[in-house]
Amino acid sequence: MSAGFGVTRLIASLQLRSCLSVCLSALLLSWGFEAEANMVSGPVVNVYPLSSYTFGSKEAKMEKDTSVADRLARMKQNYMKEGMRTSVEGILLVQEHNHPHVLLLQIGNTFFKLPGGRLKTGENEIEGLKRKLTSKLAPTASSIQPEWQIGECAAMWWRPNFETLLYPYQPPHITKPKECKKLFVVCLSERQYFAVPKNLKLLAVPLFELYDNVQRYGPVISAIPQQLSRFNFNAINN
Amino acid sequence: MSAGFGVTRLIASLQLRSCLSVCLSALLLSWGFEAEANMVSGPVVNVYPLSSYTFGSKEAKMEKDTSVADRLARMKQNYMKEGMRTSVEGILLVQEHNHPHVLLLQIGNTFFKLPGGRLKTGENEIEGLKRKLTSKLAPTASSIQPEWQIGECAAMWWRPNFETLLYPYQPPHITKPKECKKLFVVCLSERQYFAVPKNLKLLAVPLFELYDNVQRYGPVISAIPQQLSRFNFNAINN
Repeated sequence: MSAGFGVTRLIASLQLRSCLSVCLSALLLSWGFEAEANMVSGPVVNVYPLSSYTFGSKEAKMEKDTSVADRLARMKQNYMKEGMRTSVEGILLVQEHNHPHVLLLQIGNTFFKLPGGRLKTGENEIEGLKRKLTSKLAPTASSIQPEWQIGECAAMWWRPNFETLLYPYQPPHITKPKECKKLFVVCLSERQYFAVPKNLKLLAVPLFELYDNVQRYGPVISAIPQQLSRFNFNAINN
Repeated sequence: MSAGFGVTRLIASLQLRSCLSVCLSALLLSWGFEAEANMVSGPVVNVYPLSSYTFGSKEAKMEKDTSVADRLARMKQNYMKEGMRTSVEGILLVQEHNHPHVLLLQIGNTFFKLPGGRLKTGENEIEGLKRKLTSKLAPTASSIQPEWQIGECAAMWWRPNFETLLYPYQPPHITKPKECKKLFVVCLSERQYFAVPKNLKLLAVPLFELYDNVQRYGPVISAIPQQLSRFNFNAINN
């Protein structure tokens, strides 16, 4: 499971505890509120333990494109019709040993993404993100739909050309960016049931694993620790 | 001047314009408000042209330590007396060709820092940052003291040990961090006079130069573009 990176937790699987996390727990227990006296600024975000949440699976959601080239070609076609693409993604946080973890979807063995996707033309970004989170992570039965609480915008990334490169600012000589991608903190409630498409894995990846790891997670996901650093995480234990 | 990186602007010098910036201006004029229709979230920050500001010099402010080892030793001594060090730094923004630039102090040829410094025991962080900005950047005559407007906290970094490494989160097994460093956006007024200590240079460095440039600027300064990406910069031209 979760081949190659011991600290990342594969949660949409039968094995909810790895022996590593047990070994670490003795070391980690005392973290949490030590520094609070010095934090007079910055928004507070409650994070609940991973064990508060339950996970199941649902029908596969296949990717629309089978290659990066296909994806960029489709992006170009859509741009001609609809103009700049706006995509929205959610940073869903849980805690393990009082350290924040980000929920990531894994496709195959090497590609990670945040839950989210492209807005429809004219769609409100908060509503669009809720729609995408439901499509990616909520059960199909409408009776148990989560009420997503979308928090602050944590980052914006710009795609200047029909290429894979994104920048955290509008590059100066680009007047017509091809995409703006916005990341929002999603405030999870204390308990929630996630249904993960069968072809994807859901992982809880600690900030310390994402940090300075552009090689595995790419520039957008690996910058999340820096972008969340201003928040005061309130790790709630059951 | 500003050896080796053509786009960075050395501003506390006689040469306020480089020929490069003139060459770029034709390309850059049309940036700015193209993307605004898509930005419904994120705080707005006004940024004024570099040419709005005037620069002079004042008496040198020598560094307290002459080596990294000395600095860490002094940090350890202070920690024994006063506990965790809290330092505050300001991100002062100007624009050139509608692209945000960060004001950095340069010591010698290779070391860059944000204006700021260590809080006194019990000092309020906003008041402490104002005191430090005045000490680093304001003229000595009290009649022309700027009224610093301290904006949002953009980042927090933690030093777990008496070492140079900082992290954008509290490392999980660290119960007694040695330093917390907080970065605040400073909203400059439309006009201001800066007095730069004679032993330092003041530079206006574009976000695109800082981004992905940990080698030159270190992890704290090079992450500023990602941390500012959620802001909507309103580039004001004279």
